[in-house]
Order: sequence, then C-alpha cells, then structure tokens
Amino acid sequence: MRPLDALVNALPEGRVLTDPDVIDSYARDRTFLEPGKPLAAVLATSRDDVVTTLKWATEHRVPVVPRGGGTGLAGAATAGDGAVILSLARMTAIRELSPADEIAVVEPGVITADLDRAAREHGLMYAPDPSSYEISTIGGNLATNAGGLRCVKYGVTRDSALGLEVVLADGRILQTGRRTMKGVTGYDLTGLFVGSEGTLGVITAATVRLRRAPAAPPATFAAEFGSLREAGAAVSAIMAAGCQPSLMELLDRATLEAIDDWRNIGLEPGTMAMLIGQSDASDGEAVVKRMEQLCVDNGSPFVAVSSSPQETEELIGLRRMAYDAKERLGACLVEDVCVPRSVLPDMIMAIEAAAVRHGVKIATVAHAGDGNLHPVFIFEHGTAEPPPEVWAAADDVFTHALQLGGTLTGEHGVGLLKRRWLALETGPVAQEMQQGIKAVFDPLGLLNPGKAI
Amino acid sequence: MRPLDALVNALPEGRVLTDPDVIDSYARDRTFLEPGKPLAAVLATSRDDVVTTLKWATEHRVPVVPRGGGTGLAGAATAGDGAVILSLARMTAIRELSPADEIAVVEPGVITADLDRAAREHGLMYAPDPSSYEISTIGGNLATNAGGLRCVKYGVTRDSALGLEVVLADGRILQTGRRTMKGVTGYDLTGLFVGSEGTLGVITAATVRLRRAPAAPPATFAAEFGSLREAGAAVSAIMAAGCQPSLMELLDRATLEAIDDWRNIGLEPGTMAMLIGQSDASDGEAVVKRMEQLCVDNGSPFVAVSSSPQETEELIGLRRMAYDAKERLGACLVEDVCVPRSVLPDMIMAIEAAAVRHGVKIATVAHAGDGNLHPVFIFEHGTAEPPPEVWAAADDVFTHALQLGGTLTGEHGVGLLKRRWLALETGPVAQEMQQGIKAVFDPLGLLNPGKAI
Ligand SMILES: Cc1cc2nc3c(=O)[nH]c(=O)nc-3n(C[C@H](O)[C@H](O)[C@H](O)COP(=O)(O)OP(=O)(O)OC[C@H]3O[C@@H](n4cnc5c(N)ncnc54)[C@H](O)[C@@H]3O)c2cc1C
Ligand SMILES: Cc1cc2nc3c(=O)[nH]c(=O)nc-3n(C[C@H](O)[C@H](O)[C@H](O)COP(=O)(O)OP(=O)(O)OC[C@H]3O[C@@H](n4cnc5c(N)ncnc54)[C@H](O)[C@@H]3O)c2cc1C
Repeated sequence: MRPLDALVNALPEGRVLTDPDVIDSYARDRTFLEPGKPLAAVLATSRDDVVTTLKWATEHRVPVVPRGGGTGLAGAATAGDGAVILSLARMTAIRELSPADEIAVVEPGVITADLDRAAREHGLMYAPDPSSYEISTIGGNLATNAGGLRCVKYGVTRDSALGLEVVLADGRILQTGRRTMKGVTGYDLTGLFVGSEGTLGVITAATVRLRRAPAAPPATFAAEFGSLREAGAAVSAIMAAGCQPSLMELLDRATLEAIDDWRNIGLEPGTMAMLIGQSDASDGEAVVKRMEQLCVDNGSPFVAVSSSPQETEELIGLRRMAYDAKERLGACLVEDVCVPRSVLPDMIMAIEAAAVRHGVKIATVAHAGDGNLHPVFIFEHGTAEPPPEVWAAADDVFTHALQLGGTLTGEHGVGLLKRRWLALETGPVAQEMQQGIKAVFDPLGLLNPGKAI
Repeated sequence: MRPLDALVNALPEGRVLTDPDVIDSYARDRTFLEPGKPLAAVLATSRDDVVTTLKWATEHRVPVVPRGGGTGLAGAATAGDGAVILSLARMTAIRELSPADEIAVVEPGVITADLDRAAREHGLMYAPDPSSYEISTIGGNLATNAGGLRCVKYGVTRDSALGLEVVLADGRILQTGRRTMKGVTGYDLTGLFVGSEGTLGVITAATVRLRRAPAAPPATFAAEFGSLREAGAAVSAIMAAGCQPSLMELLDRATLEAIDDWRNIGLEPGTMAMLIGQSDASDGEAVVKRMEQLCVDNGSPFVAVSSSPQETEELIGLRRMAYDAKERLGACLVEDVCVPRSVLPDMIMAIEAAAVRHGVKIATVAHAGDGNLHPVFIFEHGTAEPPPEVWAAADDVFTHALQLGGTLTGEHGVGLLKRRWLALETGPVAQEMQQGIKAVFDPLGLLNPGKAI
C-alpha cells in the first residue's frame, strides 16, 4: 500500500484531496511564491482528523503544512514538494461564548469577522481585526500573531489569546494556558505558539479573550496631505499627544491611485497621502477634533469628519480594499517593517528614496499608529520571481528599518519570503535557541519545514 | 584554589559576600520557607559581573539563584545548599526613557515604583504595580510576570515587556524582542522569559512599554458588605456591566481586622468585606457612580466615594499594607488562585468553607476584577512548616479553583511552594515540553534548579 493510501483509509471519507489542480490552489497563499508539488490536501473537520494525519505523517516522515484561510502575505502556508497540506478551514465551530467571563472557545477555522459578529450579539467584540478579517481564520491569526486596524488600541492577536489546544507532530495533544484573565503556571507556551507559523504544532482550539464593544460607533476622520512626510509627522504628533486612537491608518498616493483606478473615489491631484483615524472613547468626538487640529497643524489642507456610520464604513472600506486594488496592478511583494513611532516620518522618507533610487513602484499603507508600514513593491504579473531591482529596494527598506530600531515584520510573519533577512535581525544565539525549541516540539522537523525561523 | 576563590578573583572587589549570616538574609524571599546553606551571594553591578559569575558557575557546575528584591511569595528566590545567589538589586540604571516612543530601557534592579515615578515626569506611567511596588524590582516582576492593582485595566508585566537582554547559563548573551510596539520575527522569546522565574537565564536589561498616565487622579470608591459573597457578586456585576475599572480590590473581614489591629481604622462589627474600586477614565466620576449603584444593588449598606487625592491615597494604602498586617499575626502561606470572573462568588464561598472545615485562619485579599484571589493561611510564627490542616485547607482551595476552570497561580508564580500542585494543572505533555525548553536554555540545569516547572 502506498503511504497516501494508508492516510486515505485512516480518515473518514472525502477528507483527502489528491487532484493536482485542486491541491495547487491549497498550496499557495497570497504571495507570488510558486508552490512545489504537494502530495495531498487533508480537509480536517475534527481534532481526530488532525491527530490521524499527524500520526501518519510521523510514521511516514511526510512534511505537513498547516493552513487556514490561505490569506498570508509571507509564504508561510506555501507548500513544497511531497508535503501534505492540512487545512483547518472546515473546523468552524464556536464551541462556547461566555459573556460573563468575556471569553470564547473556538475552532481554528472560524473566520475572524464571524467571531467578532458573534461577540457583538452580546455587546462584546473580538478585537484583532486584520484587514483580511472576512477571509482569514482565527488559527491563521494565532499562528501569525496577526495585527489589525484596531490593534493600535487593543493589541495584537497575542493579547487576546488565553489558551490553546494543540496537536503536536507526533499526534499527542498539548493543552496550554487557561480560561482566566491572568495565570503564570509554568512557561508561557500559549505565547510561544502564537506567531510560530505552524512550525511547532497544529492549533485545534483556542480560548480567546473578548472585550466590551464601545457603546456608540467610533468617531472618524480622514485627512489629506500634500506629502507623506507631513502625514507621518501628524501621526507622531497624535500619538505623542496621547489621543489613544482606536484606528490610525495611512495610505500613500500610489495606494490611493490604485483604489481610484478601481473604484473612482475622485482623488485630487495634490493629495499625496491620506490619514484615517478613529476614536471609540466615550468622548470620541472631542478626541477626533483634537486629532483633526493636529493634522491641520502638520500641514493638512483638508480634513473630513464622518457624519454617519455609513460614511465611516465607506472610509474604512477604502483601507480594507487597498491590497486587492494593488493586486490589480501587478504582482506584489509586501514588506511589513515596524519602527518606533517617533521615526515614522524618517521611515517613510527612506521608502520614497528606495523607490526612486531603484526605479521601483512602491505603494505604502501603514498601521501608522503602531509604526507598522506595508510598502508594497509592485512588479509585472506572471514573473515568477520579483526582478532584482525590487529585491534591492526591499533590501534598502528593511536595512533602514533596522537602523531606525525597527523590525523585519510587525504582523505578517517571516514565512518563506523574509527568511533572507532573518539573520540580520535575530542574532546567532537567539537563532540557536529557536532551533532548539523547534526540536523540542517537532524533533523530526515535519511541521512546516523551512518557515519562520 | 577553591572554586569560590576563583570567582572572588574574577570579579571586581566587594562583589562576593560569604559571611553565612549575611548570605542567609539573601537566601530568603517573603515566604516561610527555610533556605539551605548557599556558598555565597554575588552583588552584580553590571552585565559583565553577571557574565563572569555564570561562566564560573558553568565551569564549576554551581547552581545559581537570581534575585531581585526578594519580595516573592512563592519561594522562587529561596536558595539551597551550595548555590550562589546572584543579586541584581544593584543594577538600578534607567538607561533610556523615550516619551515619544513611550518606552524605557532599564536595568533589572530598578525598583518598580521608581520607574513609574520617572515615567510620570513625562506624563506617562509604568502600568504594572504589584502591591509590593516600592520594594520589588523590574527584573523580579518580569521573572514572575507580576500583576498589580492596575492590571485589571492595563494588563500584567508581560503586556509591558517588549524586549530583553538575557545572560544564559553559559555566559552567552541573548537579545530578545524589540523596541517597537509590534513584532513577530521568530518565536516570542521575550514572552517565554517573562514568568520563567529565573530558570532560563538572567535578565540584565529590559525594554518596557510605558503608557499615557490619566490626566486626573482616578475617581475612587470603597463599599462595605455584610458578606463576602455579596461583595463577590458586586464585582461580577461591575465587570459584566463593562465599567472597565482601573482598580478593583477586595478585602475580607480577617484582612480588615488585621489592618484595624495595626492601624485602627474603625472597623464596624457588621463589615464582612470591603471593595475598593477606581476608574481613571475621562468620565471616571460617572463610572464610579454606576459602580456604586451596583454595589448597593448587591447589598452594600454603605459606599463612600473619595473626595480628595489624599483620601484616595489612604484607601489604596490600606490595600497595600494588607500583607504586612497579616504577617504581624503569624506566618503566612499565600495562595494565588485565579478563576473566571463570573465564578468569583463561588470561589469565595469555597475558601470560607475550607477555613471552617479545617479550622484554619484564612484572610483573603483579591485583585477581584481579574478573578485573582490571595487567600492567606495564617499559622504560628516560628514553625518551619505549616501544620497539616493548613496544607489540607490549601489543597481544598486549589482543587476547587481548578474545578471552577481556574489556575494555581495568577501572578506570584510556582516557585518552590506550589510545585506540589503543579501536575494537577499542567498535563504530562506540557510538562515534558517545558522540561525540554529548560534543557535548551540551561542544559546543565544550573539556573534556579527545582523551581517553576
Ligand atoms: C487583503 C489582505 C489584508 C491583510 N491585512 C492584514 C492585517 O491587517 N494584519 C495582519 O496581521 N495580516 C494581514 N494580512 C495577512 C493575513 O491575512 C494574516 O497573516 C492572517 O493571520 C492569515 O490567516 P489565514 O487563516 O489566512 O492563515 P494562512 O495564510 O492559511 O496561514 C498562515 C500561517 O498560519 C499557519 N496556520 C494556519 N492555521 C493554523 C493552525 N490551525 N495551526 C497552526 N498553524 C496554522 C500556516 O501554516 C501559516 O504558517 C492580510 C492579507 C490580505 C490578503
Ligand atoms: C507586600 C507584598 C505585596 C505583593 N503584592 C503583589 C502583587 O500585587 N502582585 C504580584 O504579582 N506580586 C506581589 N507580591 C509578590 C512579589 O512582590 C512579586 O512576585 C515580585 O515580582 C517579585 O519581585 P522581586 O524583585 O522581589 O523578585 P524576587 O523575589 O527577588 O525573585 C522572584 C523571582 O524572580 C527571579 N528573578 C529576580 N530577578 C531576576 C532577573 N534579573 N533575572 C532572572 N530572574 C530573576 C528570581 O530568581 C525568582 O525566581 C507581593 C509581595 C509582597 C511582600
């Protein structure tokens, strides 16, 4: 019997896909990276399916690539030759939602926005909201430690993760963490799994923290700027003034053009950047007034304050469609540098300089309140690899981020795409420790090999 | 040359203490646990001193017990026979404090409240404030993942830790984390060190997050209750109503008596519990009014709202002196169970029942908003071990906490004291993984052996 037949026999019917064309669509994430030829894709519907698959993989030494929504931007879910893709997308139960304890217990395939909507029915929210929240899964969010628009106020996925159920590479089940708000029994294994990109184990359930949803819709503004640098300075000023926005997003001219090209938003010729900000505080309107003033002080010729929830939705919708708009223009290499907030304007100038120096198209959006920038390097569709000048510009941007005290990746993770830069940030001692940890959890190196560390 | 002479020679003068009486005072924390006979205490004043000590310890296979303020309540800094105590208390520099980036870089011996005061000069605060904040160190707070009074709103020490400099057992230097608000490059080693109780490495510097200090002093109330259960119900109601208090502390009758006995606070006969709450929101007074009402609804006959910062200081001072007041009455075994918030009243009843069943004096304070209770089991001074009925009552309390979905320790850590219960909460797979991690960082098992895991 071929090894794969053993897997097909061990799982309930219909779980294993082997048609190469179908598998190919499960082998990619949202990067340009070309996958290899995986052996099969398993569509797990229960923890048992996951255990069966991993025990089989251990027995036959087959690499396994866990997969959620496949919306990743770092190639972390890209599957190589001979691997088995393990999709958790069908494990979509919200097992428990406790308004009194403000927690939920969910399966990994739950779509991020679905959990948020379920929480809203009880006056709560699930705070981490990547732009992709209608298509990403909680499992993928945990495995990448996803950020989002609200995380400038409410923190990243890690800050909402209390406990996990994980299946290890050998099929054993590990429980981490707890149901309580605080807890320090033993090492923080929950935190270790968050952001580990599927390399330490497969998350089959998570206990997450919910938060009170603000009583009223947030107060919202959008400010236009004649230069990116001014917009960056406005952000630094707003954060330093302690306004505590619940959202603070920046879009550059190239991004706005991509959106305008698609949806015709009536972009003015002089608008080089737009800043969208929100406050969900009980005195949100007053806070937005202060933020508006700081935009004007920093050179904004025009600030619009939203007058209805619908207008707000439209504004935020612009931001959420930014990536799709850029993908219409070409293949995208997305960087994800994060810098200390005070040097945001410097980082923006470095990105602009890299674009000019290397003659590369870069369109930038930023979770600006966190100092987290996504310069998107756009190149011709259909090229397997970005051309050398794109890599050179990306090198420049990342090197500059490090010099400013920044980091390679604020929220998307390392995946395959950013391994080339990893050693510049992570010293040899830390790399050795991370490899050591990997070996403790996955001694055969079967889980998502070649990713993250 | 004796091994110890080699250490004395390798370090600058005056670093190594060997007088047994002096060492003894460095060998204890704030528990009743009797230390062994350590070899020496090293008072490090620099990272170099730490490196030298650990290289020497590795060469000679000597166990090392890191130590901050020695205020721990779990025996995590209790030193055994033949160990070297490595005190970080003299490394007290605040190396950097950046108001623009809202971060500070500090040495481990900085007293918690000193960092907070330094931050306040810039309109910021260092949020984690254990009751011990005038005597505990940042290094100890990180190593225990300390909570505090404000953490019901601002999170525990983990939530303020961005990056660490750590010296490993073999003297190598490990940098973890970053200076930015977000970052996911590699596994979260910072989170792994937080709460690891000195068993993985010695923290010699930390980059921590500061937060905006509220503009005005918090609005404050104190409510008396005729029963602990009612007070617990009021807490559950307040949290469920989304009041988001910035402090929510509960003191039981036995605790209040201990304080009254010491400071004469005019305790009324019928007062069985007191709840102290704060809101530092911009509409804090209105929030306190709502919390007051919820106390009344849950049976409080008397709620006092503070009318001046001084009155507030006095109220909070009561809470901060609770442990010292109890230590006057006897030796203390402190539990630190944490339960989901909705079952706080059940947990309180279980504690009361355990006291009665075993005829043991238990005085309880709680970071009630987090469901984190400190039942303090008081027994006669001078007894080396708590009598069997104290252990039996403590068993009862912990078992009940687990049944309610709770955890062994919310913030004090496992240390030596709670190792007896560890396996009940942490399953065998998690224990094996934790031992594996320990072996990666400290293969010879020299760092704080026998603690935490
Ligand atoms: C339009 C768009 C906008 C985006 N905006 C944001 C944003 O604002 N913030 C942000 O952080 N990201 C953003 N992203 C990136 C992406 O959505 C996130 O990284 C998301 O967390 C990935 O979730 P996923 O379910 O799609 O995971 P996948 O892409 O399927 O997988 C990502 C990683 O998680 C692992 N994984 C998935 N499920 C599990 C599991 N159950 N157990 C173990 N490992 C698992 C995979 O192996 C892989 O390493 C965006 C992407 C797009 C396309
Ligand atoms: C009156 C009183 C009130 C308290 N209130 C609270 C409270 O509200 N919340 C709370 O969480 N705790 C509280 N505690 C417990 C205690 O103060 C905390 O655990 C505190 O974090 C310990 O800090 P420390 O500097 O005294 O550490 P120590 O007691 O010296 O050490 C504690 C642990 O940290 C390790 N350690 C210390 N420094 C380092 C370092 N640089 N590198 C590596 N490991 C290190 C030690 O090895 C040990 O394992 C209280 C204690 C008292 C006496």
